[in-house]
Amino acid sequence: QDAAYFREHAPHYSDPYAKEPKRDPTLLVRSEQPFTAEPPLDILAQQMVTPTDLFYKRNHLPVPSPTETDPSAYKVTLSVEGQTNGISIALSDLKKLPKHSVMSAVQCGGNRRDEFSTVKQVKGGHWDAGAISNAVWSGALLIDVLESIGVSPSDPDIKHVEFIGLDKDPTTGVTYAASVPVEMALDPKSQVLLAYEMNDEELPRDHGFPLRAVVPGVVGARNVKWLSQIKFSHGECDSHWQQSDYKSFSPSVDWSNVDYSKAPAIQEMPVTSTVCSPLHGASIDASAQSVTVRGYAYSGGGRGIIRVDVSADGGKTWHDATLQTPPDQKRNQVYGWTLWEVTLPLPTQADAPGDIEIVCKAVDSQYNVQPETLDSIWNIRGLLNNSWHRITIHRGAATTS
Amino acid sequence: QDAAYFREHAPHYSDPYAKEPKRDPTLLVRSEQPFTAEPPLDILAQQMVTPTDLFYKRNHLPVPSPTETDPSAYKVTLSVEGQTNGISIALSDLKKLPKHSVMSAVQCGGNRRDEFSTVKQVKGGHWDAGAISNAVWSGALLIDVLESIGVSPSDPDIKHVEFIGLDKDPTTGVTYAASVPVEMALDPKSQVLLAYEMNDEELPRDHGFPLRAVVPGVVGARNVKWLSQIKFSHGECDSHWQQSDYKSFSPSVDWSNVDYSKAPAIQEMPVTSTVCSPLHGASIDASAQSVTVRGYAYSGGGRGIIRVDVSADGGKTWHDATLQTPPDQKRNQVYGWTLWEVTLPLPTQADAPGDIEIVCKAVDSQYNVQPETLDSIWNIRGLLNNSWHRITIHRGAATTS
Ligand SMILES: [Mo]
Ligand SMILES: [Mo]
Repeated sequence: QDAAYFREHAPHYSDPYAKEPKRDPTLLVRSEQPFTAEPPLDILAQQMVTPTDLFYKRNHLPVPSPTETDPSAYKVTLSVEGQTNGISIALSDLKKLPKHSVMSAVQCGGNRRDEFSTVKQVKGGHWDAGAISNAVWSGALLIDVLESIGVSPSDPDIKHVEFIGLDKDPTTGVTYAASVPVEMALDPKSQVLLAYEMNDEELPRDHGFPLRAVVPGVVGARNVKWLSQIKFSHGECDSHWQQSDYKSFSPSVDWSNVDYSKAPAIQEMPVTSTVCSPLHGASIDASAQSVTVRGYAYSGGGRGIIRVDVSADGGKTWHDATLQTPPDQKRNQVYGWTLWEVTLPLPTQADAPGDIEIVCKAVDSQYNVQPETLDSIWNIRGLLNNSWHRITIHRGAATTS
Repeated sequence: QDAAYFREHAPHYSDPYAKEPKRDPTLLVRSEQPFTAEPPLDILAQQMVTPTDLFYKRNHLPVPSPTETDPSAYKVTLSVEGQTNGISIALSDLKKLPKHSVMSAVQCGGNRRDEFSTVKQVKGGHWDAGAISNAVWSGALLIDVLESIGVSPSDPDIKHVEFIGLDKDPTTGVTYAASVPVEMALDPKSQVLLAYEMNDEELPRDHGFPLRAVVPGVVGARNVKWLSQIKFSHGECDSHWQQSDYKSFSPSVDWSNVDYSKAPAIQEMPVTSTVCSPLHGASIDASAQSVTVRGYAYSGGGRGIIRVDVSADGGKTWHDATLQTPPDQKRNQVYGWTLWEVTLPLPTQADAPGDIEIVCKAVDSQYNVQPETLDSIWNIRGLLNNSWHRITIHRGAATTS
């Protein structure tokens, strides 16, 4: 009897998805099991801090049950390879350490995956451009936790820190896990958190209640939810999600010749931007002489956004958007996203009677830019789509006055 | 009487360029006064460490005279705004501190400027793709110097560190100066050096003898030569080279509407790569079935290179180059460049009888990529050209056998 048998014959008892939390019906659901969903783009770009209910959801496995995540009994264990075995730290003790808050956008490695399929089919769950959101996370700094228990993983052979979740594959029992380079975890500027709050309230179940890792500036996949173990290790995490899932390759690599050992696990993500409003396919008044365009921009690794260029004429003329940058973040510690807005003059209906394409591209503090086309960054898993974002809007019927 | 008068009437006495050092005739000279020159690309990519004589030269002003740079009397002064006034440190005392070495590529902000003029004229000195080189720099760590004199610029109002050179405009007397963010200077990972050696020998005059700043991972313009003053300051350096020269703008900004305050000074440079061999315009045997291509790749801010894609068919097929990465550099502290080599199969002469275009593009550890075209990154000063590098080679006359 496999998991499917049990799901069919005793769903009230063994269905691992029977106790999933309620979700906001505004979300656009991309998968029910595991649950993945993104907010509509025009709502997403309305505010610097994404409302928690609308924050995109990307679970890899069923949400752990309330029994497993009972906060009164919750603890995380910490070990250092060759040095310290499994020190348990109660959630209640973590909450006694100084509470540190950091604004950090979290983005899925597959954000904007669906666009790639216009070039060639990719493998992975559906995503439009809403698999990113921005929140304020609060909890104990990992470096404070280490100090409080008197552990210093300063052995030069310790090169990674693994985060292991409680979420478990119902068939194999394998739990979600991922790692980041140890110097990221130990650098005070990185502000790696064991977070128990999101936007000043306790974490919701979909975002890792009661405890998750938050690694500012790093792909969602390393921000492990339902955190149960932290391992300082010589080697990188050996999970599927670290070793093969979240890596990108050349457009000429296909499933017959991919060698996962040749690419590094995605950590910091490259500079990107998206037009969120108007929505792709929206209609504007036929006589409109301008349109106000809004969106987000983001770069990983603490790189801030210095400019967003927007064009309504295929890149002949670029307009500098007005930027709303995340408050109080220092250079190269810019972990929140940037919102932007610009009012674009439109060609007259006589000059451009048909659809209008709007294009955006961002520049980060390292002056990195986005690639123009999808073709040159296409990859088998459809990851890291940071090509120029393009939407089309339609002129309505001409109004006569 | 201005400087021009003195140059005309007493050249042996007042010509500020009368005492320039001898240079290697292999260099391709781009300007005599101030001296700028780059090595031929095929020679440049032959070795990980660029021979000192062939290292590209980019002076902004005349090289200071031997009298001004007499090492036995040489000192640098260090000040902290609102805290410490002008502590003088003798070069001989700097040499008593631990000698630290770091491999770091230095690249001019204008490297590959000339390509931009195929789009629209830019303003700036000529450069092909050789305005970058890689060396091992040795000297005292700036953080060790601070500790040795008991100075800690920990005041949160101190946000920049200025480096001021001895090189001086003959007319105005203004000296070269530039700054970097203070957290870069104080982070041990950045390894900011007061360097007195280059490739295990004393600095040559063209590279700042007897002392220069080396800021690994940062544009050449901040690696100030003939270093005479270090100022920890509230504000960024107010020099022309910080405030207006080394900044990039949108392609839609021109000289009539440029607002220098809207763009940050270039520090870390974006990911780039260049085909160095064969040279553009080279001929290959008519019957050649493959060609071996070599080049360099680099990204600023300590980002390493993870992949270089090379194509001989306009991007339909990409070949992964074999990388030679700089030795012993940690993730996100990769300050040296990467050399690469790949043997590309060529279309048959029957299929592609004419010229063959070879294109390369690199990916860095943040998975940032290069933009496909020049148009979208064109800027008035012709800075930061990191578009795909393209060269054309010719098939020779068909050989009959
Ligand atoms: Mo993800
Ligand atoms: Mo430069």
